[in-house]
Amino acid sequence: MATATQPSYLDLAAQKRAEQLALIPADWRLSPVPSIESTPDALSYLRRILSARELSLTEETDITVLLRKLSSGELSSLELTTAFAKRAALAHQLTTCCTEIFFEEAFAVAKGMDAYLAETGKTIGPLHGLPVSIKDLFSVKGVDTSIGWVGLTNNPATSDKSVAQTLRRLGAVLYVKTNLPQSMMMSDSYNHVFGQCVNPLNRNLISGGSSGGESSLVAAKGSVLGIGTDLGGSIRIPASLTGIYGLSPSPGRHPYERGNPGQDMVRSVAGPMCVNLASIERYMEVLPCAAPWELDHHVAPVPWRRSLASLKAKRLRIGFLVDDGVVKVQPPIARAVRDVIDALKAAGHEVFEWDASSHGYAYSLWEKAIFSDGGEGCRKKIEMTGEPLVEGMLVGTPDHILTTSETHQLLADKYLYESSYLDRWTTSGIDALIMPTTPWVGYKPWTWVKSNAYVGYTSIWNLLGYAAMSVPITTVSREQDIPSQEWLNHAPRNAGDKFNKEQYDINLVEGMPVGVQVVGGRFGEEKCVAVAKAIEQAMRWKDVARPSL
Amino acid sequence: MATATQPSYLDLAAQKRAEQLALIPADWRLSPVPSIESTPDALSYLRRILSARELSLTEETDITVLLRKLSSGELSSLELTTAFAKRAALAHQLTTCCTEIFFEEAFAVAKGMDAYLAETGKTIGPLHGLPVSIKDLFSVKGVDTSIGWVGLTNNPATSDKSVAQTLRRLGAVLYVKTNLPQSMMMSDSYNHVFGQCVNPLNRNLISGGSSGGESSLVAAKGSVLGIGTDLGGSIRIPASLTGIYGLSPSPGRHPYERGNPGQDMVRSVAGPMCVNLASIERYMEVLPCAAPWELDHHVAPVPWRRSLASLKAKRLRIGFLVDDGVVKVQPPIARAVRDVIDALKAAGHEVFEWDASSHGYAYSLWEKAIFSDGGEGCRKKIEMTGEPLVEGMLVGTPDHILTTSETHQLLADKYLYESSYLDRWTTSGIDALIMPTTPWVGYKPWTWVKSNAYVGYTSIWNLLGYAAMSVPITTVSREQDIPSQEWLNHAPRNAGDKFNKEQYDINLVEGMPVGVQVVGGRFGEEKCVAVAKAIEQAMRWKDVARPSL
Repeated sequence: MATATQPSYLDLAAQKRAEQLALIPADWRLSPVPSIESTPDALSYLRRILSARELSLTEETDITVLLRKLSSGELSSLELTTAFAKRAALAHQLTTCCTEIFFEEAFAVAKGMDAYLAETGKTIGPLHGLPVSIKDLFSVKGVDTSIGWVGLTNNPATSDKSVAQTLRRLGAVLYVKTNLPQSMMMSDSYNHVFGQCVNPLNRNLISGGSSGGESSLVAAKGSVLGIGTDLGGSIRIPASLTGIYGLSPSPGRHPYERGNPGQDMVRSVAGPMCVNLASIERYMEVLPCAAPWELDHHVAPVPWRRSLASLKAKRLRIGFLVDDGVVKVQPPIARAVRDVIDALKAAGHEVFEWDASSHGYAYSLWEKAIFSDGGEGCRKKIEMTGEPLVEGMLVGTPDHILTTSETHQLLADKYLYESSYLDRWTTSGIDALIMPTTPWVGYKPWTWVKSNAYVGYTSIWNLLGYAAMSVPITTVSREQDIPSQEWLNHAPRNAGDKFNKEQYDINLVEGMPVGVQVVGGRFGEEKCVAVAKAIEQAMRWKDVARPSL
Repeated sequence: MATATQPSYLDLAAQKRAEQLALIPADWRLSPVPSIESTPDALSYLRRILSARELSLTEETDITVLLRKLSSGELSSLELTTAFAKRAALAHQLTTCCTEIFFEEAFAVAKGMDAYLAETGKTIGPLHGLPVSIKDLFSVKGVDTSIGWVGLTNNPATSDKSVAQTLRRLGAVLYVKTNLPQSMMMSDSYNHVFGQCVNPLNRNLISGGSSGGESSLVAAKGSVLGIGTDLGGSIRIPASLTGIYGLSPSPGRHPYERGNPGQDMVRSVAGPMCVNLASIERYMEVLPCAAPWELDHHVAPVPWRRSLASLKAKRLRIGFLVDDGVVKVQPPIARAVRDVIDALKAAGHEVFEWDASSHGYAYSLWEKAIFSDGGEGCRKKIEMTGEPLVEGMLVGTPDHILTTSETHQLLADKYLYESSYLDRWTTSGIDALIMPTTPWVGYKPWTWVKSNAYVGYTSIWNLLGYAAMSVPITTVSREQDIPSQEWLNHAPRNAGDKFNKEQYDINLVEGMPVGVQVVGGRFGEEKCVAVAKAIEQAMRWKDVARPSL
């Protein structure tokens, strides 16, 4: 408990932010930081202030290109890391996307990589010398793992844990950790330690959550590969809002790092976030080289099945859904799904509508599991310093606590649902399901917490443990996304649906990215990639405005 | 609830047994069934009464030999299935090893297999035409899944479920299901429906549990490949008592079928039980051909990694432990472990002692998880008919029920333990750990329930989800296993240890099989096989009495 003689949570947070700022080299400080009003588009601003060389390095979004140069010695890890560190530092000042900054350590690691290559002609691993950013949740030796809680600051990790260890085995250079919301149970990345993370494409809007620092940094091209986490959409929603790819794998595919006691019925997962699909694929492909199952008990030794990720001349069988019957998606999202489906059909693939009538039930199971600790975990954190809890997060109250008998019933209900869903999935012969990621396209900060927080379009795949990926498709268009009569006539089904309808404002979100979600099924990461490739191919033939990343 | 007008549980059970007997063809009935006193050794008895042809088919323990003949058409599935059905029927009359008998359906399937091969020249799958027995727990269309509860009889399954489906995809012919204990939480396979299963090597003794019907049938060679389940040793303990191989895989490796609501912290697994190591290996190798992940949500698409299962010229690094510090193992078991370790050392492998000081703590975690439903599942079953609960099973009482907060703490404790154990496992460079399976070598029926039921030698690997296999090594020898002064001086550490010491009686167990447990780690099924091969090779050089199966 906080006592009168201890510094307040505000003092502690201010101190932490001051320390954070001090870790940015003076040359890389913006003075002044341009206001949001004057400079809403951070990405364009960064493109104006960086050198041609810095841009040529950081605008490359395909890690296979960078890795080839790194491993051949054509590009030094130190130069590349420095370029991304600088861009991340600048992006952070514009968007509050970072938590821990540890450039000096990164430069030392990068130098070591360069020296090793020069001396031996060999690489450390398949990501040799590549700077990689990770969400604050993952422990990195020497820096805090505060996860947005004031009470967890000033307690540096004594060692790397599984995710950081895996990345090091692959040869990655860690240089920043990224921002997230208090409790990680929000789609808006705000916490009392680091403050409000915003979207680099439009700083008036949020970059989503909980991996919103990662999406913001990657979309600003302060990172070419970021690792986020997802328990209900926390990779896919921010990826969608910032126009990048975000893959939420099945549990057991990617290492993770679990913190405090909590429910284990729906398991959070870690996965890559990138501007470029090839980078997602390359990362997933090399991940098993690190033998992550030696570092994380919960990882299964599943190899990357290249044949499943390739398109070949195969005719795909694609399910789709536009509306899950709970919250109707805003017009640009419905358009994006329909455009993708039309394009795939035109490209010769088979498409069919997927029955989502059970998805509301799935959401109720997910909620029961997530809320089952009654918010105990959060309460323990706020008691450390007295910082206030953000209202509107997806966090349980004591009323939600389940008895053990109720927990066992929930497990049984979940098992039945899993079994029947898998049966339907398998017998349908589906390659992937294409659907919305969120029912909304853009919010200002602190709007989401008033929204009744429906994340059912994404959370069902966490409940089921299916691989699912956000794929950027288009941008909001004043011409194409003016509310139709059908949208205006829609009678809201519930409070969340009502809020979602009311919030749609073309003036707010014009030009913002819109994506779809590609669901590949259990351990279907390769299918996600294959179908995303098919979408890229099919959409290339259509004249659509793609996000300008 | 049972009412006065309903038949008693005894009537229902008697009716079920009568129906079961009626399913054995008249020609295959033993009349009279020889008494245990006159004929303790069922295996030798079967060898006397079967024809040379029947013996030549059923004494072949290597499924690769049978499969080669089946797929070439040299041997018909109908003939092989008939031979195993007959031997199973005879074995059952001597040991009570079976629950459901469905020979007619099996013969029809076998004929279909033969016809398909004759017509197309192709096989249905890699187990084409092979009769396979499975534990009663697994649903097979048309027959009960009573799992030893009177209240669950007379309720035939309307469809095959994941395990049966998987076996059918592989081309297997199902013909019997096998016996198990009430609640499956005993190492003695007794239930009120089917009665007491015993050991075919010595019918005075038990065949273990809960997969005790399977071990009894396989050891009697009424089945060449059986599928059991294991939550605390239920494959490995019966395998050990009957001198066969039994592999308990990591969760996610083999399909399973979950029944009623219950805890999900320690997950039961299914795995093969065979007389011959090559059969275990072949089965595990072909299992992924069925794509079991399409049939069971919890299976990960992990291929069989043949290189890990092969010995090559590799020098293995083998950990060992003889005593886990909780219950001291009886003399023949200690001898078996030491003999194996000596033989491996002599064969040039590296051996080192493994620290088991945390294993008692692991047992406390396992018990907490297993008991956490407070015995609710069992109470619901007995309420159906009023059948009595067997006392002494590993089943919780209402005192054991955990609150959700306690469950979350247990999950956190388990996670920490998993993480530290994996770290120790990986950094030690261990290939496998060799240790006892049970601390005892043989009991008469109804002894185990008085024993305080310590299963910590096996249950730790269920807690951790490590692959572990029982490997038969030797038999109890009057010369070598007379209690040493050290054994006689051992001061019992607890009630279970005291019971275990007192029960050791060379007159009771002379000649019975003794094995070791080979632990291969997470998804270490291939390592189990590799190290079991190394043991076979190393022991061949030594002059030890192997079980005479």
